[in-house]
Amino acid sequence: PFGLAVMASDAISSVAYAAEEILIVLIGTIGLMSYTWLGWISLAIIGLLFILTISYIQIIKAYPHGGGAYIVAKENIGIRSGLIAAASLLIDYILTVAVSASAGVAAIISAFPNLSQYKVELVVGLIIILTILNLRGISESSRIFSVPTYLFIISMIIMIIYGMIKYTIYGAPAPMINEQIKATGELSLFLILRAFSSGCSALTGLEAVSNSVPNFKEPSQKNAKIVMILLSSLILFIFGGTSLLARFYHAIPVGYPTVVAQIAYGVFGRTFMFYVVQFTTAIILIMACNTAFTGFPMLMYVIARDGFAPRQFTIKGKRLSLSVGIVVLALVACLLVVIFNATTHRLIPLYSVGVFLSFTLAQIGMVINWRKSREKGWKKRVTINGIGAGITILTTLIIVFEKFSEGAWIVTVLIPVIVLSMISIKKHYDVVADMLRISKEDLAKINLNSKVNHIMIVPIASLNKAAINALQYARSITDNVIAINISTDLQALDKLKSRWSELNTDIALVAKYSPYRAILTPLLKYINDIANAAGEGNRITVVLPEFITHKWWGQLLHNHTSFFIRETLLRNENVVVSTYPYHLKDDEI
Amino acid sequence: PFGLAVMASDAISSVAYAAEEILIVLIGTIGLMSYTWLGWISLAIIGLLFILTISYIQIIKAYPHGGGAYIVAKENIGIRSGLIAAASLLIDYILTVAVSASAGVAAIISAFPNLSQYKVELVVGLIIILTILNLRGISESSRIFSVPTYLFIISMIIMIIYGMIKYTIYGAPAPMINEQIKATGELSLFLILRAFSSGCSALTGLEAVSNSVPNFKEPSQKNAKIVMILLSSLILFIFGGTSLLARFYHAIPVGYPTVVAQIAYGVFGRTFMFYVVQFTTAIILIMACNTAFTGFPMLMYVIARDGFAPRQFTIKGKRLSLSVGIVVLALVACLLVVIFNATTHRLIPLYSVGVFLSFTLAQIGMVINWRKSREKGWKKRVTINGIGAGITILTTLIIVFEKFSEGAWIVTVLIPVIVLSMISIKKHYDVVADMLRISKEDLAKINLNSKVNHIMIVPIASLNKAAINALQYARSITDNVIAINISTDLQALDKLKSRWSELNTDIALVAKYSPYRAILTPLLKYINDIANAAGEGNRITVVLPEFITHKWWGQLLHNHTSFFIRETLLRNENVVVSTYPYHLKDDEI
Ligand SMILES: [K+]
Ligand SMILES: [K+]
Ligand SMILES: [K+]
Ligand SMILES: [K+]
Ligand SMILES: [K+]
Ligand SMILES: [K+]
Repeated sequence: PFGLAVMASDAISSVAYAAEEILIVLIGTIGLMSYTWLGWISLAIIGLLFILTISYIQIIKAYPHGGGAYIVAKENIGIRSGLIAAASLLIDYILTVAVSASAGVAAIISAFPNLSQYKVELVVGLIIILTILNLRGISESSRIFSVPTYLFIISMIIMIIYGMIKYTIYGAPAPMINEQIKATGELSLFLILRAFSSGCSALTGLEAVSNSVPNFKEPSQKNAKIVMILLSSLILFIFGGTSLLARFYHAIPVGYPTVVAQIAYGVFGRTFMFYVVQFTTAIILIMACNTAFTGFPMLMYVIARDGFAPRQFTIKGKRLSLSVGIVVLALVACLLVVIFNATTHRLIPLYSVGVFLSFTLAQIGMVINWRKSREKGWKKRVTINGIGAGITILTTLIIVFEKFSEGAWIVTVLIPVIVLSMISIKKHYDVVADMLRISKEDLAKINLNSKVNHIMIVPIASLNKAAINALQYARSITDNVIAINISTDLQALDKLKSRWSELNTDIALVAKYSPYRAILTPLLKYINDIANAAGEGNRITVVLPEFITHKWWGQLLHNHTSFFIRETLLRNENVVVSTYPYHLKDDEI
Repeated sequence: PFGLAVMASDAISSVAYAAEEILIVLIGTIGLMSYTWLGWISLAIIGLLFILTISYIQIIKAYPHGGGAYIVAKENIGIRSGLIAAASLLIDYILTVAVSASAGVAAIISAFPNLSQYKVELVVGLIIILTILNLRGISESSRIFSVPTYLFIISMIIMIIYGMIKYTIYGAPAPMINEQIKATGELSLFLILRAFSSGCSALTGLEAVSNSVPNFKEPSQKNAKIVMILLSSLILFIFGGTSLLARFYHAIPVGYPTVVAQIAYGVFGRTFMFYVVQFTTAIILIMACNTAFTGFPMLMYVIARDGFAPRQFTIKGKRLSLSVGIVVLALVACLLVVIFNATTHRLIPLYSVGVFLSFTLAQIGMVINWRKSREKGWKKRVTINGIGAGITILTTLIIVFEKFSEGAWIVTVLIPVIVLSMISIKKHYDVVADMLRISKEDLAKINLNSKVNHIMIVPIASLNKAAINALQYARSITDNVIAINISTDLQALDKLKSRWSELNTDIALVAKYSPYRAILTPLLKYINDIANAAGEGNRITVVLPEFITHKWWGQLLHNHTSFFIRETLLRNENVVVSTYPYHLKDDEI
């Protein structure tokens, strides 16, 4: 199933940094003992993976059309919980981009150390490329996207199996990084919890599958379950395997080369396979990065449909809405990359909080769901999701407390801010809808044929063809037409007046001289004065000529003020603005 | 004169980096001998300063309303030379920002070395702050702006005089940077020319005075001349003084601390005065940076008035035009800062080329000007500007050749690109003006009262108050009104139809169901079909309701598509778009 490849990249790619995160915490304090504890902590995380997998299969069963934490929490717990889940998923997507791009570049730098000085530039460049590709609409379903995932999985499997055999037969070779490891502190529960919370990064991306059920081929529910099981088995094997190999081949977290690169070096030496591992790791991380570019706008669509985000995210077809989502995602991710110096390790705390908060809310929602439904086997299901909820709550708390000062605090500030904004947006839309509403009784009383006295105002720059067209249009609607010109040049003003007198018309020309280069201010003032003086039954329409050009850069050279004039005039309740197009045949120039 | 303070900051601040630039070139090759040659090269540059000062006073005499290289070259040599001068001045302004901000931060880092890791961030942050201040419109004429310039001048004078006396009495103290200087190569003409071209950075900013003559108080011509002479004397004294002190106090260019900081340390030790020197240096460099924010939009105005830049730069009053200039300036400067890692030394080659190219063109222009005018004393004037031209041509060539691979090539590529763009823009405006022109004979033949059959189309989302207002407006113009609704929801569609039947009207409602979430595409297609089918004498006007909100974020939540719809429909020559405002009383929410 190609669905596996695309969705799975987010989850599977996490093995590129998870073991390293655990070692970073341990190695400075307990030295060589870290490798033993890396094993135990990996085991605990694999246990958590097991629980989450079963819990998420339940969610897929209950929400065959794709749920994700937002829907599950909203429908079962309440709207506020749903919004908290939505906020954490939005943060999750942003960090998927920042973390995966940074880790992908780390894999490349591990192979080509000279590039390390351009780390931030490479990560930002990568995000920009993905942004452009997604703005132009790459087709994610393409089979080609599944290839790198398989290549990564295969090369990891080869590395793990070959690495195990080689170690069993020959023992460990000289490590890539030859540093003395010294224990400087003691083992403590605090340290173990810190390491565990770091290792939880191995599970980021698991949530993507249940968010994306409708993307799978029919029968999507069954496929999603298979993906879930396959995925978890792969994470188990690769994460467990790399944790063991890190121990055997004595990998030390030093930034560059990454732990995975050091393992690959230990197993293969600096051979072709070493580069294959680095390259496939980079590619799967880039793929993971890309899943967020699809998921973020999709989530924004669901939230906007419920009125909690600007309505423009609901517009399909014209890529406008998608584009805004993609650009926002990329900008915030780039900002984080620059702030955190493209260092995966420093971004992970922010990432894990969002992911585990969404895990927790989804599980709690499911517990409530089964209790309400009371369908066959509900008690068993409550137990499964209840255990899931308990463990993820605990894990979320551990991550928040252990990583608070390392960046988790940012997320705990951001989530309430995002939730409150969403509530304000919803409230605004509700109030506006109330204002606009017309009752059934009032509908029948409306008179659409009210008598209106039209006054048309046509601002003109000179007496050219565009101005004539606009004047003809205005005159065809009413006899009350006023042409107005503001000039900063007395000569030009006289010329206009004399040319106007040649014109066979009774339309009044108001031509004003403005000494201080100011055109807009007197123009707007004149129109607003007329509009404010016009009594009941009069309606002012301003006809603005707009040049339509056919060269791409032509638009940059015209109509700079028409947007500004229109938006300013519309602030006056008595003014309607008609935009009259004048087509420049500039493609024939 | 406060004019001195503001204009002079650009020119005077260059002493913060000029001596350092010379030493960087020399010290690695000729070791301790550098200090002797620093003296000779400084002398040559002061000679150049002398020539340029006299030449520029001539320009001020001939162009009392402010000339600058663009006007002088355009009026005397020809339009292409004018455009080359304009392009080099635009580049000059951008680099004034990048160089001055980088050097300003270098002065701060020299006092607080811990900040060096945030170098690029500090420079970009500084530029952003200046951008915001200028977008909000700080008043440059304010007296407060002259204070830092005077403080800088005074503290430099104190440093030089006290430093000379101290050295004479006590000899040199232990230098701040205790590095062994070794000669590794030989003195060569090539080396001297390189050092000279680096030192020419001392003269950047001199051009700003003649560009800005009209900014001075009346009699501005006389004031500008006084400023010019004062300025040059100050540069002579400070640049000459620091060059000598660099030798006495054994300052070595190492990046941080800067050469000026090392001199200040040698003279004052790490006392209060050391910090005063660093602080005033930083402030005057920030002021220099700021002059570009005034000069760049002003130059764009002059170029745009001649038709060589988008016309929007000619709009005064509404800050729109200024804003575009300011933002473009800041963005490009930040880009350069990031690319060149906020290193003054690496930015200087780009800066000097632009400045000296504009010097050269101005001088050549003046030679031609005097020859044409043949006014009293023209021969003397030709000689003065002729010498100026000869020397600046030579200097420009030296800079381009010596610094080509270090960044000067970028400017030699950019200038033709900018010039060609300006010519294309002018050509476009000329062609459009030709298209729009109506001859005097044709004017009299125009009939403004042609008969038009209006068809009004009103797209509605539901039957709410905004829709009713738009329908009433349309109906008051013609009986041919069509209401159109595209719905992605069958229920909503039925509800609209049933509500429409309650309405007391004969207006036709076209209600269409669109299954795939697409609203814009079928709407635009329907309207374009009608417009294309409408024969001669028919005119289609689409009435688009637009929500006017009074909360600042309200606009973000409405009208996302109205801009897109309007611009798409206007591409059809038969369609006029009327924007009908609906005022939301959301400030009362
Ligand atoms: K994972
Ligand atoms: K994720
Ligand atoms: K992940
Ligand atoms: K200078
Ligand atoms: K300058
Ligand atoms: K300067």
